[in-house]
Amino acid sequence: MTEESPGGYTGKILRVNLTDKKTTIEEPEGRFYREYFGGTALIGYYLLKELKPGIDPLGPENKLVFSAGVLSGVPSAGCGRSGVGAKSPLTGGWGDAQSGGFWPAELKRAGWDAIIVEGKADKPVYLWIKDDQVEIRDAAHLWGKTTAEVDSQLKEELGDKRVRVAQIGPAGEKLVRLAAIANDINRYYGRCGLGAVMGSKMLKAIAVRGSNPLKVANQEKVREIAGATADVIKRFMGGFKSYGTAGGVGGLNAMGILPTKNFQEGQFDGFEKITGQAMAETIMVDTDNCTACAVNCKRVVEVGPPYNVERVYGGPEYETIGSLGSLCGIDDLKAIAHGNQTCNALGLDTIGTGTTIAFAMECFENGILTEKDTGGIELRFGNAEAMMKMVEMIGRREGMGDILAEGARRAAEKIGGGASQYAMHIKGQELPMHDPRGKVGLGIGYAVSPTGADHMHNIHDVEFMRVNPTMSALGIQEPLDPFDLGLSKVRSFCYLVNWQHFKNCAITCMFLPYDPNRMAELVSAVTGWNASAWELEKVGERALALARLFNAREGLTAKDDFVPERLYKGVSSGPRQGKGLDREAFQEAIKNYYGMAGWDAETASPTAARLAELDLAWAIPELDKIAGKK
Amino acid sequence: MTEESPGGYTGKILRVNLTDKKTTIEEPEGRFYREYFGGTALIGYYLLKELKPGIDPLGPENKLVFSAGVLSGVPSAGCGRSGVGAKSPLTGGWGDAQSGGFWPAELKRAGWDAIIVEGKADKPVYLWIKDDQVEIRDAAHLWGKTTAEVDSQLKEELGDKRVRVAQIGPAGEKLVRLAAIANDINRYYGRCGLGAVMGSKMLKAIAVRGSNPLKVANQEKVREIAGATADVIKRFMGGFKSYGTAGGVGGLNAMGILPTKNFQEGQFDGFEKITGQAMAETIMVDTDNCTACAVNCKRVVEVGPPYNVERVYGGPEYETIGSLGSLCGIDDLKAIAHGNQTCNALGLDTIGTGTTIAFAMECFENGILTEKDTGGIELRFGNAEAMMKMVEMIGRREGMGDILAEGARRAAEKIGGGASQYAMHIKGQELPMHDPRGKVGLGIGYAVSPTGADHMHNIHDVEFMRVNPTMSALGIQEPLDPFDLGLSKVRSFCYLVNWQHFKNCAITCMFLPYDPNRMAELVSAVTGWNASAWELEKVGERALALARLFNAREGLTAKDDFVPERLYKGVSSGPRQGKGLDREAFQEAIKNYYGMAGWDAETASPTAARLAELDLAWAIPELDKIAGKK
Repeated sequence: MTEESPGGYTGKILRVNLTDKKTTIEEPEGRFYREYFGGTALIGYYLLKELKPGIDPLGPENKLVFSAGVLSGVPSAGCGRSGVGAKSPLTGGWGDAQSGGFWPAELKRAGWDAIIVEGKADKPVYLWIKDDQVEIRDAAHLWGKTTAEVDSQLKEELGDKRVRVAQIGPAGEKLVRLAAIANDINRYYGRCGLGAVMGSKMLKAIAVRGSNPLKVANQEKVREIAGATADVIKRFMGGFKSYGTAGGVGGLNAMGILPTKNFQEGQFDGFEKITGQAMAETIMVDTDNCTACAVNCKRVVEVGPPYNVERVYGGPEYETIGSLGSLCGIDDLKAIAHGNQTCNALGLDTIGTGTTIAFAMECFENGILTEKDTGGIELRFGNAEAMMKMVEMIGRREGMGDILAEGARRAAEKIGGGASQYAMHIKGQELPMHDPRGKVGLGIGYAVSPTGADHMHNIHDVEFMRVNPTMSALGIQEPLDPFDLGLSKVRSFCYLVNWQHFKNCAITCMFLPYDPNRMAELVSAVTGWNASAWELEKVGERALALARLFNAREGLTAKDDFVPERLYKGVSSGPRQGKGLDREAFQEAIKNYYGMAGWDAETASPTAARLAELDLAWAIPELDKIAGKK
Repeated sequence: MTEESPGGYTGKILRVNLTDKKTTIEEPEGRFYREYFGGTALIGYYLLKELKPGIDPLGPENKLVFSAGVLSGVPSAGCGRSGVGAKSPLTGGWGDAQSGGFWPAELKRAGWDAIIVEGKADKPVYLWIKDDQVEIRDAAHLWGKTTAEVDSQLKEELGDKRVRVAQIGPAGEKLVRLAAIANDINRYYGRCGLGAVMGSKMLKAIAVRGSNPLKVANQEKVREIAGATADVIKRFMGGFKSYGTAGGVGGLNAMGILPTKNFQEGQFDGFEKITGQAMAETIMVDTDNCTACAVNCKRVVEVGPPYNVERVYGGPEYETIGSLGSLCGIDDLKAIAHGNQTCNALGLDTIGTGTTIAFAMECFENGILTEKDTGGIELRFGNAEAMMKMVEMIGRREGMGDILAEGARRAAEKIGGGASQYAMHIKGQELPMHDPRGKVGLGIGYAVSPTGADHMHNIHDVEFMRVNPTMSALGIQEPLDPFDLGLSKVRSFCYLVNWQHFKNCAITCMFLPYDPNRMAELVSAVTGWNASAWELEKVGERALALARLFNAREGLTAKDDFVPERLYKGVSSGPRQGKGLDREAFQEAIKNYYGMAGWDAETASPTAARLAELDLAWAIPELDKIAGKK
């Protein structure tokens, strides 16, 4: 009944080979975008096809794929994001991360959907993309500089204040496995250590300026949806504007699942000092937004001496407040803001950094690390000075920081003496600030996510304790019980986590209220396709399937879908005291999930049949490359 | 974003036990309807829960479930239908069938979504349902009468011309396994022999009169969709009005896949005399429609002596023209109309009847049957007299007809002498008038349909030779090649056949242009749910899963998913001469389909994991009852 607009979506992909300094342009047909969309699925398509299994993630054979999505840059809230992916130096498997801000929309305005970065430059370079014109430029003068320095330097030398920059800081240059990729100085593709991949390629930055207005198939409909979304924001998302992502600190603490002292505890005495509310009343001076978004959930903070936190790096998100705050036993919001600033200046993932520092603190408390190891720093829970110092040392690979720069798993192996029991990671990726002991679905997600412990490829059970329109449209009629691991819960997890993966293809903000029907309308309005909730959910499932197949090919199989032992034990106090994950039920749930997802019980890779069902028959031969398979 | 209207859909189910003459009312919550909808899924829910495996389909333990759908009776084209199901006396497995007309909407107006008929009356009865009032009445005076006689008798004795009647004819009374259930005299729940189930319960008819206007959540939106649908009908479906379903006879003949002489040939010399066009120019006197539908695809015909075909029984559909016409080598449209009338008067499935007669004709041509067997009838291809006589004999179980009344498979077993090679059936259900050698996807569908060879649980490849909005919304971007059996084709089959199963839940006409997005809008407008294409497609998959599990429990497994040997050989002339199904590729395709559908390779039942994924965890214990499973 609905007819498609002729033409549909078209796009361009830039391929940059840094070894031979060649750039080429690829223009896949609309069909490609409809199946691979952008973000995780698009990245998965290229990485699975073009990377050989077993390559060094920090070697020239790895590829770094920046990918906007079909919706990136569309003038409706939550559409200002993009993704990036590569083989992860942190996990040795699939790596991808998402970021917001203004760089993604600028990339689209320059006419590009994605950039595939190949090879390795022999000296530091940056990319300058002005619409169709692409230059690989010398970056010797930028190497070693902080993100804010580079951003302003590039704007100056390119003579355009509206240039948008994605870049690595010194941490990425030094191949810190916790290194992130920044854009617009204060937005981060945080997880999976992708900053180190960019660093390994000697690519300091990608500066972009575009002048082509984004074309959409049905401008009027896009406006209508944008307006309705803005209205929902106005009506229901005021709390986000007031308190940002950190608005929930108090609630999590009350529930007993605010990650505290390296997940030993779920309540933090000093929580009230580090809430979003506290931030709004103390160090916050402004709010900030992403392209076309009225939520304004980003914080801008300022702290005077001796912290000297500047506005430019933004304020700490919830994840940062948790990881550099409660997880380290620190209730000094100014110190957290300082740690956040250092992470952003040096280009570090605040989550991985904080969790790794908390790990080191627990080692220190237990005598596995001493002041001799730390260079005299008393690396105890609650020592804000120590945290701030250690962030800097990790970012610059100084002293003890050089070991911690490898991430918690590798650091624990180097430190030895039983340190591994304190390394809270999955597949080498450090746990973010959500405790699966209070939302067990998230625990399944941590275990089975292709990226390891990652809140961006996941569900957050507590959000689903009432049936929302997304659940309803996916045929989930009952609210989720955050402590249930039964079949019905696993089914809901399966559907919702595929939807989250779609959002990582779209690449839309997880907070914005586009349920699958509304999302299909938006996609149709932008592309002219007759997009449906079915199709979009399948894009998500396709993305996840590609990532899991990538992992299996790298030897990451069911055995790697674990959670840290600590999570089977309870926290030491509060409402969740003594209540760990039920090991048997949890492992049964993972097994059941494999079945529902159509994954092999041993390789945890999608079966040939499931690949074919997802129109990924081309990837079936990759199953033969799975390590350990005959 | 979209919020659900409070309340959502509610409905009522009538349970009638004919053994103890009790009626009870069940009112499932809205959640039930959202998962089981109506038609195949709703019927599947009850049959799987309430029938014991191994029961006699014609015994009192079988249950006959009439089910309208959530959309039945909604005033938009194609929504005037309903379904009925039971364990099939023809296949010994899952049986369900759909019908249009006006009875379904009347049932809804009387306030009922479904009727579950249990047990067996000790003498003929009929049900009289007037809104909430339900009576089990004596039907001794109706027993043995034709459908038109019963219809007018009931209208007269109930004193209301607007009473709508579903009923069996004499064929159902006599437990003819080819017996159908009629409604409105000329609409048929044709397949699976369900008329015999109704007959076995001594239930002659269900007369319904309702006075409650249908409630919908969003009247304005329903009107808008109805208007848009009417517009599409006006613009694109004129051919259907002019020539009905038989409009395609010429095209199929040109393609070489008009089933002819019991599938020995794909072209028929006399095809021009039996087309929809020929009918319009000769015996057609009017057109007819179903509730709220402007297509008017139904024919009304009239033929004088010696045929004496009356208007009341309607004209032959394509399936009837094929089965009583070309399949029997008969090009006499008046004789076909007469055969159609006899089928409708006696309550026979025209497809099963025609295919069984064609089988007998081939037996006769090959000397396996003689005039001694047939009582002097020269049962040769092309003998219209013989066909007309044999229809009557089957419906009344007279002479040779008593054997053929058992259906082609059982008749072949009784006849012996190699007759089985001519019995064109799958699981005991006779092939309809679509030749899988020219649309191989339909062939997969015949093999794997829970009902055996059935065009109503299937795809028709030729319809998908251009990408239509349904395909597009399901993420199928390439047209189907009717001769392809590869993975991509199987994937498309999988998605489309689930969608067809959804339509058998909805229960909407397969010809109407509700693509999944438009359908989700319509469902939402009617129910107040935030229905999505995802959810609806999953309802279809759920329906199919229930039916397949039912079959597996009855011992119908992968071994029964065959096609007749003849289909691996080519037809004897025309464009498809010598081109049979590729056995290896076909069997590989079925295997691949099992994988994609999530069915066990041996039992061909959904796995426990797939059941759970479809929110059918309650049915997992049924897997233990699958014959041959330990």
